[in-house]
Amino acid sequence: MGEFKVIGKGVVRTDAVDKVTGRAIYTVDLTLPRMIYGAFVRSPYAHARIKRIDASKAWKVPGVVAIITQEQLSKDYALVVEEEVHAAERVRRLLAGDKVRYYGEKVALVGAETLEAAKEAASLVEVEYEPLPAVTDLREAVKEGAPLIWEDREPVQGPNGELLYNVVSESHHQEGDVEQGFAESDYIFEDEFYVHRVHQTYLEPQATIASVDEKGKITVWTSTQGIFAVRSNIARSLGIPLSRINVIGMTIGGGFGGKYGGITDVYAVILSLFTHRPVKIVYNREEEFLDANPAPGLYVRIKTGVKKDGTLVARYVYALWNVGVGGGASWATGAFARLYKVPHIKWDAYEVATNTPPVGAYRAPGYPQIIFAGETQLNRIAMELEIDPVELRLRNLRDEPGFRETLMVVVEKSDWFNKEKGENEGWGIAMGWWQNASSPAAVFVSVHEDGSVKVFCGMMDITGSETGISQVVAETLGVNYEDVTFVRGDTDSSPFSPPSGGSTITFSVGSAAKRAAEDALRQILEVAAKQLDVKVEDLEWGNKRVWVKGDPERSLSYAEIARAAMRTSSGPIVGKGTFGADPSDVATFAQAVKVRVDEETGEITVIKSVQALDVGRVVNPILCEGQVEGAITQSISWGTMEEMKYDASGAMVNPNLGDYQIPTIADVPSQVEISLLEFPSRHGPYGVKGIGEPPITAGLAAVVSAVADATKLWMHEVPVTPERLILSMERSKVGV
Amino acid sequence: MGEFKVIGKGVVRTDAVDKVTGRAIYTVDLTLPRMIYGAFVRSPYAHARIKRIDASKAWKVPGVVAIITQEQLSKDYALVVEEEVHAAERVRRLLAGDKVRYYGEKVALVGAETLEAAKEAASLVEVEYEPLPAVTDLREAVKEGAPLIWEDREPVQGPNGELLYNVVSESHHQEGDVEQGFAESDYIFEDEFYVHRVHQTYLEPQATIASVDEKGKITVWTSTQGIFAVRSNIARSLGIPLSRINVIGMTIGGGFGGKYGGITDVYAVILSLFTHRPVKIVYNREEEFLDANPAPGLYVRIKTGVKKDGTLVARYVYALWNVGVGGGASWATGAFARLYKVPHIKWDAYEVATNTPPVGAYRAPGYPQIIFAGETQLNRIAMELEIDPVELRLRNLRDEPGFRETLMVVVEKSDWFNKEKGENEGWGIAMGWWQNASSPAAVFVSVHEDGSVKVFCGMMDITGSETGISQVVAETLGVNYEDVTFVRGDTDSSPFSPPSGGSTITFSVGSAAKRAAEDALRQILEVAAKQLDVKVEDLEWGNKRVWVKGDPERSLSYAEIARAAMRTSSGPIVGKGTFGADPSDVATFAQAVKVRVDEETGEITVIKSVQALDVGRVVNPILCEGQVEGAITQSISWGTMEEMKYDASGAMVNPNLGDYQIPTIADVPSQVEISLLEFPSRHGPYGVKGIGEPPITAGLAAVVSAVADATKLWMHEVPVTPERLILSMERSKVGV
Repeated sequence: MGEFKVIGKGVVRTDAVDKVTGRAIYTVDLTLPRMIYGAFVRSPYAHARIKRIDASKAWKVPGVVAIITQEQLSKDYALVVEEEVHAAERVRRLLAGDKVRYYGEKVALVGAETLEAAKEAASLVEVEYEPLPAVTDLREAVKEGAPLIWEDREPVQGPNGELLYNVVSESHHQEGDVEQGFAESDYIFEDEFYVHRVHQTYLEPQATIASVDEKGKITVWTSTQGIFAVRSNIARSLGIPLSRINVIGMTIGGGFGGKYGGITDVYAVILSLFTHRPVKIVYNREEEFLDANPAPGLYVRIKTGVKKDGTLVARYVYALWNVGVGGGASWATGAFARLYKVPHIKWDAYEVATNTPPVGAYRAPGYPQIIFAGETQLNRIAMELEIDPVELRLRNLRDEPGFRETLMVVVEKSDWFNKEKGENEGWGIAMGWWQNASSPAAVFVSVHEDGSVKVFCGMMDITGSETGISQVVAETLGVNYEDVTFVRGDTDSSPFSPPSGGSTITFSVGSAAKRAAEDALRQILEVAAKQLDVKVEDLEWGNKRVWVKGDPERSLSYAEIARAAMRTSSGPIVGKGTFGADPSDVATFAQAVKVRVDEETGEITVIKSVQALDVGRVVNPILCEGQVEGAITQSISWGTMEEMKYDASGAMVNPNLGDYQIPTIADVPSQVEISLLEFPSRHGPYGVKGIGEPPITAGLAAVVSAVADATKLWMHEVPVTPERLILSMERSKVGV
Repeated sequence: MGEFKVIGKGVVRTDAVDKVTGRAIYTVDLTLPRMIYGAFVRSPYAHARIKRIDASKAWKVPGVVAIITQEQLSKDYALVVEEEVHAAERVRRLLAGDKVRYYGEKVALVGAETLEAAKEAASLVEVEYEPLPAVTDLREAVKEGAPLIWEDREPVQGPNGELLYNVVSESHHQEGDVEQGFAESDYIFEDEFYVHRVHQTYLEPQATIASVDEKGKITVWTSTQGIFAVRSNIARSLGIPLSRINVIGMTIGGGFGGKYGGITDVYAVILSLFTHRPVKIVYNREEEFLDANPAPGLYVRIKTGVKKDGTLVARYVYALWNVGVGGGASWATGAFARLYKVPHIKWDAYEVATNTPPVGAYRAPGYPQIIFAGETQLNRIAMELEIDPVELRLRNLRDEPGFRETLMVVVEKSDWFNKEKGENEGWGIAMGWWQNASSPAAVFVSVHEDGSVKVFCGMMDITGSETGISQVVAETLGVNYEDVTFVRGDTDSSPFSPPSGGSTITFSVGSAAKRAAEDALRQILEVAAKQLDVKVEDLEWGNKRVWVKGDPERSLSYAEIARAAMRTSSGPIVGKGTFGADPSDVATFAQAVKVRVDEETGEITVIKSVQALDVGRVVNPILCEGQVEGAITQSISWGTMEEMKYDASGAMVNPNLGDYQIPTIADVPSQVEISLLEFPSRHGPYGVKGIGEPPITAGLAAVVSAVADATKLWMHEVPVTPERLILSMERSKVGV
C-alpha cells in the first residue's frame, strides 16, 4: 500500500467537540411548534387476556388529544393514512389486542399537550385483565405444559424425538458426521451453558419526533442506527409508500444494535397521523428495559470429541435461544465453529418464545453467547487434558490469515507462558471473531472551488465512522483530513446507506466513499491533463495539487482545477461510489484476562485484559482502540453482572439502572493492553475490516475460564454474579 | 426522438399546491431562537461627505444589540471572523465610509431584539453630512463638469475624441468596416434611444437569516436564485472559507436576476458574527427601490446603412449604460446584431457611473434595452422605405434554424399581411433572442427499493424548473412524473448547481439530470440483465419495468431490480450526471402587438399580443406559456409604465408601488396568443433551450412601433408614458 498520509493517523473525531461541549442536538432536544407528547399504557401482566379498556377517565385529563387502542387503530387507520393499501392488516399487533404477552407491553397510546398530561392520562386508562400463567425462562418454555405464548403453535420435535413447545423457528446444520467423529474421539466432553438476556443499555433512550404535513408527507426525526432502515420499517409496518416518508437522523447516543427502529418511531407516526400534530415520544429507562429489543438469552449443550493430543474431532451444539415475543437469533449458532478445523460439526438451534419483550441485535448478535460456550469448553478440555489452552488452540486453529498471529500477539503481550498469579487469581484466554456485514451503500464526493471536499451520504455516525471515512476519502483524493467535511443527508436527499451495525460501515460505506473519491480524482486528473496539455498518465498528485511527473513546477492546485472544470465540458468535480455485496474476511480477536476472586463476597475483579484484534487496516488507531475498550468492558460486565431478571409472574424485577448493573469506570480492568493487527480484507477500503463487533466475542469465556483458573470451578451460567459464585463455591465445598 | 411519454405534458408544478395554499415557507416565515433583527441607517443624500456618525441616542433604544459602521467594521472584523485573511481589506465599502454615493445607501447596520427597536435605533443614529452635487442621468454624467462618482477616475476618450466622464468600463467590437459599409449604402438612418432604469419588482423582497454557531460555522437561509452564488459571494466579500458557510435556499418569491446575493445576506452574516445571535434582515419595498440592483438604463445612438431594397449593409451603435455605483451591462450591447446578416458591424459601449444604486441582472440582462433600439429602428426604416417590416426582416435574417420560422408563425397567427386596425390603433412587430447560459451543474438520481425516484441537487426552483427536470428524468428513466421526487439540498450537501438565471436551468441542470438518469438506467439494465440472464442489448424498458425483447413475460419491475441491486456487487441504484460548458443555440422570439392610443390621455392599451418562441423542445407547455406570458407583460410595462425616477438632488421620487407602476391583470393584453416552436439545441436535454429570457426581448420595440403605426410618432424614450406621448403629440402638432 505504500506510505499513508492520512490513514493510520489518530485525528480528532468530527463529532468530538460537539459532544463534549454539549452542543450536539439529540432528538429529545428538538421541539416543534404545536408538538404533542406520546405516552403508553403498558401491561402490568406478563400474560393476560384483555377483557375491556375504558379510557373515559383518561379523556378527562386536560390536554389529552388522542387515546388510541388496537381496536381503534384497526378500525380507523385506513382512514387517517389515506393510502390504498390493506392498512388495517398492516397495523395489527402494534398494540396489544385481545391479549398481552409480556410485562410492559404497549396496550394503548396517549397523546397530550404535555408529557405530564400524557402520562397521567395513560395511568387513568382502565384495562380489565384476566391474568394467565407466564413463562420467561426458555428452559421451562420448551417443556410440555408450559404456557403457550402463541396459542395456535404446535410443538416441534427435538433432536432426540422429544417435543419442544413454544418453538417459533429452528435451524440445523451438519458438516461431516458427528456420530462417527465422536466414535473416533479419545475423549468426549459435554457441557451445558446458560446465558441470560441483557439489554444494550445505550446511554440515550429510544426517541422520535414525527410530523405529518397537510399533504400527508411524514417527517421523522429519530435516534437510530439507520435512517433507511427506519424508513422501510415504517413503510412496511404502516403500509405507506417510501416516498411519503422522510427520516432525519439526529445525533445518536449509542445503539449497539438496539436502534434499528420500530420502538418509538412507528408510534410517533401513528399519533401524528391521527392528530395532525407533530409528536414526540421519548422512552424512559424503565420502558427501555420493559419494552425495547434486548439481546436473546441462550441455553446450549455442547459436546466435543477430541484426540488425546487435543485435536478436535467433532462438535455438536444444541441451542435454545430465548427470543421473547419476537425477533431472531438462531442464525448465530454456527459462530462457535468458524475458527477451528473440526472435521465433524453439527448443530440444532431453536428459537423459543417466552413472555418477555422481543429481542434485537446487540453487538455481534448471538456471538458472545455461543462463543462463550465453545471457548469455555475448550479451556475446560485443555485443563482436563493438561494441555495449555494456547497450545490446544494452535493445534486446532484454521490456517487462515491472522488467526494464529492474533492469538500469538496476546500470548506475547501477556507473557502467557510465564504469566504470574497470586492467591485467588486466575488467567483465562479465549478467541472470538466476526466477519463484518457487507451492505449496499452509495456515497457522493464533491470537490468545491476552493479545493475543499464534501462527502455526502445517509450514514449514521455512532462510533466515529464519519472520521474514518473522511480519512479514507482524504487519503484517496490526496488532501488533508481537515479539508474534508462529512455531510449526512436524510432519506429524501441522500443515496442509500445501510444501518450502522454489524461492523459494516467503514467497510461498506467506506468502500463506496473510496470509489466516489477515485471517481472525483479521475475527473481532477482529466481536467488537469487538459489544462497542462499532458496525458493523465504523466501526472502525479498529492497535497491538493497535481503536477507533471519530473516537472513539478507545471502544476495546478485542486482549487484551480475545480474552477477550471466549471468552464469545460467536465462540469463540477463530483464523484459517485457504490458498494454492494462483495464480502469481507474474518476479523479475529483474542483476549487474555487476569481476575481476582474475593472468596468472601464472590466478587470478581478483572485486573488485566490483554487483547489483539485483526482490523485489516488501522484507519484511526484511537478509534480502533476505543472500539476494543468499549467491547471488552461490555463482555466483562455481561460475564459478571448484567442480567434482566424476572419473577415467577413474569414481571421484570430490575428495570432500572439501580438494580440492573452496568459497568462503571471502576469495573474496567486497571490494565488494558490492545494490539491491532493488519491482515487486509479483500474488499474493504485499504483492507479495512469491520471492528465494532469482534472484541465483544471472547470476553465471557476468558473471564469464566479465569475464574475457573482461580477457583477450580467451571461456572456454566453467566453473568457470574457474586451470588452465583458464592453459591457454587459453597456447593463445591460440601461436594454438591 | 420518437414518442415521448412525459416530455411535452402539462403536468402540475411540484410547488403549485404549497404556493397556492400558503404552505410554502419563505425566509420571512422562519424564526430562530434568540434571533435578532437587522435594519439599516440609509443616506438621505445622493452624494455627500460623511463628517461624523453619532450613535449614542440610538444605543439608548431598549433591545439594541449592535450598531455597526464601516469604521467599526474595518477595525473589528478581523477579530470577529477569526480567519487569517486580510479581512479588513475584504469588508471595505460594505457600508458607506467617508462618502455616500446614492440616495438610500447603507451607512450603518443596527441589530436589535425586535424589528421595531432596530428601526427606531436606526432612525436615531445621527449622521452629519456635507451634501455634494449629484447626477443620476447618464447623459449628464458623461459631460465635463459632472459630479464625479469615483473621484480618482480620469475621463476616457469617446469615439469622436470627446472626453467622457464617469466611465467605469468600456467595450468595443468591430466586424467588417462600417465606414465602408455606410459609404456603400443607399440610405443612412440615425436614431437615438433612451431607456430608463427599471426594478425587477419580484413579489418577495430580499430576505436573509444568518446564524454563526460556536464553531464559527455560518448557516444562511435566504431568498436567492442560487445558493452557491450566495456562498461564494459571502466567502469572497468577507474572506471566509467556503467550507465555513452553508447556504439553505428558502422558497423564493421571484428574482428575475435580482437575487444573486449580496444585498441582505452579507449583512446578516456580519451582524451574526458581531453578536453571536441569529439575524434576520428583510427588505421593505422602499429599500428594494433605493438599494437593490435594478436594471441598467441605456442611452444609445444607432446608425444603419441600407440598400434601396432594404438589405442591411452596416450598423453602428454608440451605447452608454447607466450602471449606478457598480455592476456591469455593456457586454449585452452586441445583442442587436445577432439575428441579421449585416456585413459591417461596430459598437462602442461605455458603462457610466451615476449617483444611483448599483445595477444587476434583469431578465435577459441588457437585451430588452439594446434590442429595443435595433428593432425599433428597423421598423422605422421599413416605414420610410415602404417595405413591410416582415419583408425587411425576411430579407436580412440569418439562415439559421428557427429564425424565419419563428417570425412566420407570428405572421400567420396575427394574419399580419391582412391585419386590421381601427382608429388610433396600430401594429408593431419585432424579434428578439437569447442564447441560454451554459452552466456547470451536477445532479444525483437515486432509484429506491419501491422503484420511486429521487432527484437531488442544489438548484433553486423559481419558474417550475423542478417540474420540468422531473419530467426529463421520468422520460429518461422510463417512469411516471409522479414517481419522481425532486429534493433540493443546501450547499453543504448538494453538488454544485448554477444560479437559476440566464435561462440556464432546464438546459444545464436538466442535462446533468438526464445524464444522471441515464447513469441510473444503465445500472438498472445491468442488474436486470444479470437477473434475467440475458445481455443488456436484449432488454427493453418502460413504465417502471424491464423486459426481454420479444418475451415481455420475462420482466422485472424497477422495485425488484432496485432491491436485487442491493444484494449484488452493484449496490444501490444511484446515477450521477455532470454538465459543463457545452453551449446552447439561439432561441428566437417574435412578437406582434396591436395597440390603441387614447389621444386625450396618451394612454396606450395593448389589445393583442401574438408571439412565437423557439423553445427547442416543449418539456411542459403550461410552463413554457407561463414564461412567455410573464415576459411579455414585463416588456409591455417597461415600454409603457415602469421607470425609476430621480429628482434634481438625486433622490428617488417613486420608491413605492403606488408611484412606481407595475402591471396589473388589467394591463395584460386581452388577447394573447403563444406559439411554441421546436428547433432542438445541440446540448440541451431532448433539445431544450432556455426560455425564460427570450420572450422579454422584443416587446419594447413592438409596442413603440405599434404606437408609431397608430400615431405616426416614433418615440425614442421608454417607457412611453401618457405624459411623454401627449407631450410628443403636442410637439408634433405644433411642429417642434
